[in-house]
Amino acid sequence: MNMSSLQFYNSLTREKEVFTSIIPGKVGMYVCGPTVSGESHLGHARPFITFDIVFRYLKHLGYQVRYVRNITDAGHFEEEGRESEDKISKKAVLEKMEPMELVQKYTNLFHWAMRAFNNLEPSIEPTATGHIVEQIVMIEKIIQDGYAYVVNGSVYFDVDKYHNHFGKNGMPYGILSGRVLDEQLETTRELESQDEKRNKTDFALWKNAAPEHIMRWQSPWGIGFPGWHIECSAMSTKYLGEEFDIHGGGMDLQFPHHECEIAQSAVCNHKIPARYWLHNNMITINGKKMGKSYNNVIKLSELFSGTHEILTQGFSPMTVRFFILQTHYRSTLDFSNEALQAAEKGLKRIWEAYTYLRKVTVDIEVKSAGDDELDKKVNTILHALQADMNEDLNTAKVLAGLFELVPVINSIKDGNIKKVALSATTFQFLKDQFKLYLEDIFGLTDENKQDTDKLSAVLQLIGEIRKDARSRKDFATSDKIRNQLLSAGIQLKDEKDGNMSWELL
Amino acid sequence: MNMSSLQFYNSLTREKEVFTSIIPGKVGMYVCGPTVSGESHLGHARPFITFDIVFRYLKHLGYQVRYVRNITDAGHFEEEGRESEDKISKKAVLEKMEPMELVQKYTNLFHWAMRAFNNLEPSIEPTATGHIVEQIVMIEKIIQDGYAYVVNGSVYFDVDKYHNHFGKNGMPYGILSGRVLDEQLETTRELESQDEKRNKTDFALWKNAAPEHIMRWQSPWGIGFPGWHIECSAMSTKYLGEEFDIHGGGMDLQFPHHECEIAQSAVCNHKIPARYWLHNNMITINGKKMGKSYNNVIKLSELFSGTHEILTQGFSPMTVRFFILQTHYRSTLDFSNEALQAAEKGLKRIWEAYTYLRKVTVDIEVKSAGDDELDKKVNTILHALQADMNEDLNTAKVLAGLFELVPVINSIKDGNIKKVALSATTFQFLKDQFKLYLEDIFGLTDENKQDTDKLSAVLQLIGEIRKDARSRKDFATSDKIRNQLLSAGIQLKDEKDGNMSWELL
Repeated sequence: MNMSSLQFYNSLTREKEVFTSIIPGKVGMYVCGPTVSGESHLGHARPFITFDIVFRYLKHLGYQVRYVRNITDAGHFEEEGRESEDKISKKAVLEKMEPMELVQKYTNLFHWAMRAFNNLEPSIEPTATGHIVEQIVMIEKIIQDGYAYVVNGSVYFDVDKYHNHFGKNGMPYGILSGRVLDEQLETTRELESQDEKRNKTDFALWKNAAPEHIMRWQSPWGIGFPGWHIECSAMSTKYLGEEFDIHGGGMDLQFPHHECEIAQSAVCNHKIPARYWLHNNMITINGKKMGKSYNNVIKLSELFSGTHEILTQGFSPMTVRFFILQTHYRSTLDFSNEALQAAEKGLKRIWEAYTYLRKVTVDIEVKSAGDDELDKKVNTILHALQADMNEDLNTAKVLAGLFELVPVINSIKDGNIKKVALSATTFQFLKDQFKLYLEDIFGLTDENKQDTDKLSAVLQLIGEIRKDARSRKDFATSDKIRNQLLSAGIQLKDEKDGNMSWELL
Repeated sequence: MNMSSLQFYNSLTREKEVFTSIIPGKVGMYVCGPTVSGESHLGHARPFITFDIVFRYLKHLGYQVRYVRNITDAGHFEEEGRESEDKISKKAVLEKMEPMELVQKYTNLFHWAMRAFNNLEPSIEPTATGHIVEQIVMIEKIIQDGYAYVVNGSVYFDVDKYHNHFGKNGMPYGILSGRVLDEQLETTRELESQDEKRNKTDFALWKNAAPEHIMRWQSPWGIGFPGWHIECSAMSTKYLGEEFDIHGGGMDLQFPHHECEIAQSAVCNHKIPARYWLHNNMITINGKKMGKSYNNVIKLSELFSGTHEILTQGFSPMTVRFFILQTHYRSTLDFSNEALQAAEKGLKRIWEAYTYLRKVTVDIEVKSAGDDELDKKVNTILHALQADMNEDLNTAKVLAGLFELVPVINSIKDGNIKKVALSATTFQFLKDQFKLYLEDIFGLTDENKQDTDKLSAVLQLIGEIRKDARSRKDFATSDKIRNQLLSAGIQLKDEKDGNMSWELL
């Protein structure tokens, strides 16, 4: 396996670069995970499927990968509809709203969706609340070095001072996003505390907890909670080191989140934390940005069941996964019912071909001559797949290649074996590559084939056949049916109306 | 629903007591969860199934329950076979053994097993590593009050001093386990540091981390890690308050773990943390204690697949669940292949009856007279079920009651409807109670019925029928079979040998 030909588009350098890991054979990858203050939605599907493919592909190339994806569970959480007066009243602990109960609920739902998408579990899934000590230690270091200041029990990162000093050392604030400091607007998630900051662009490392704030920890600056950006710096450093290979996330996280991570790490470790910064592009819905104001934020449970008003039907997790893989991860992806229906059809078509391919073993006749035109064509397409993946993970192009081969498989399936001029080697290669890409690297799986429905339909048919047999006094057939079904664990029962019912034993 | 008649055996008072919650209608319950330094084994099945039943039953009674079950992920973790030299060498972070990677792996496996058992997810599943700050705060309080001392960066709880003072206030050390302090041997999990302790029974609240110890946090006493007992005190207090309703766990945790929890809480909050202490008894294997020396620690994955040498076959999660419920939780439970096979049979028998009961709706004839002997008997048995549950959760007795009703259901099933003198009301009650206990409270579910295998068997049969039809030139039947299967999504294919193969579309 040639590891050295893999290229990633690196947001940091704005170039496609050959990927080389810091430690040969090992990769450390950090991906920003979900904020579990609500149910995961369609926007969460893309980054976690995208980086699952990165994880799978790197493993396929032979790397040992430590994939760290965090859970952001520290913040100002509230379940819609829960009364906020809970928060300040002097009620017993059990009577109060417990944010960790919500965190647990939404974390469980997130994990459920990740399993549905067949995403592999990350190597470590650390939580922000699980790393308060590590965050405090890092903040202390930043204060000590003079790049943060304390105001009323809160701590802010001094962006101006950082930029002036580190800008000279090749790590200006804005290095990742390309934004110039003067132009930058305050776009961090916190809304208040503008009056406490020296400059608009400064961001919170630690926030003093107002009495009604229910997620709170003791710190050297009083009772409070960590800012958002520091958690990723603390956790990535802890589990991957001061400098690791890949940092991933959605493009919306590039600024300010990843920019702030770089600044924090630069102060603490004098390094940009990651070498390759990978960002997936956004999903739009019928051409519009996703957002509450458009009422187009589709929860994953709604997406699968078809219960959001935008949807004309439910779309299975594999359809969504396939849909996402059909577009390059750095292109925008427009969601619409029609596009999803097309993906559903496409997946069905390729999966049927693959299912057939998987089943035929020795009983298919293949030509021994490998120099026919078709044999060459198939080989050419198959050999191009890895090059497409190596070209910044062009899953769309790989799928296009596989689709080109579907008619070849179908011509075998339709019995036109004579027309298929594939050598045994090429045929085996075809099978292997379909499995490798569809199952191992793209993580597609057989969804529920509704065997139960099929079983019902077949038993219905058997019932009719048996009724026919009995009507012509063919009791041998009738009994044979009963007995063979019984040995298969199916108990027949003759109903009064002459029809048959059954029970699965 | 009469909440007031529920009784629990309280280990603390050694009596059966009527359960009353501190806050009417709400219950706070804390259960000691797994230590995720290895794969979950059979010994983990019992407490988590037992307290899942407690959770389900309290909810059924109408309580709003906050069920907290922790994950013990702080400790000295090492994967078997991993080289320990990793720990002290100056390697890059990514090259070193990362305990959180193991923690993640075993946590995921634990969750997989809990899902397989159909245990409900707890309301909050906090981790020890996620509550280092809270543990430090609690330890500081204990030191401040004079019940702990610092030696070489470690902190120990002073059991003697505690006992002398709190013993007078009704909270002696030993109050839960009944052990007298003088008799107590040192049985905490740590092995070293005897020389640092003032007394043998003292236990660690915080341990100084030796350089090779890889799980470590900054604290007021230097770099270290928390003792085992303090985590549960910190987390139960945080999420349930200083005094909550139920504390559960295996009987092996009564001493020293729960005893130490009481002492810690008594110092910090001047209260015994929980009112009702519930302990499930142990599982033995063929009459022997479970232990490495006996080579009888069966991992759950081995149990389900039958791959441990003790096992003659695999046992499904529902069989294991049913087996556990057939014995009262406070009795010892002896595991053997024969006992599990019997449980498998029993579950099959009761589930078949229930499946039938679930299916029959209007088409079953029931007597309108409700005063027959059988009708009375059925009612008596059904009404006794709740009383049995209320009697310290006697699931074994409830199952015995349900089993008594199986012949009644089977007599309906066998078509002896005339002999069944049940009123419509009783019949409905029978259906409802079976569902309530088997599914809702006991959490049993339909396991994979192997519809796929059945479908194969039935299609095999259809193939033979079609071959017969063709051999006697009955092409109408042959075509009918082909067409009806096609519309059910099954494509037939005639093989050269005259047999038939098929493909699911």
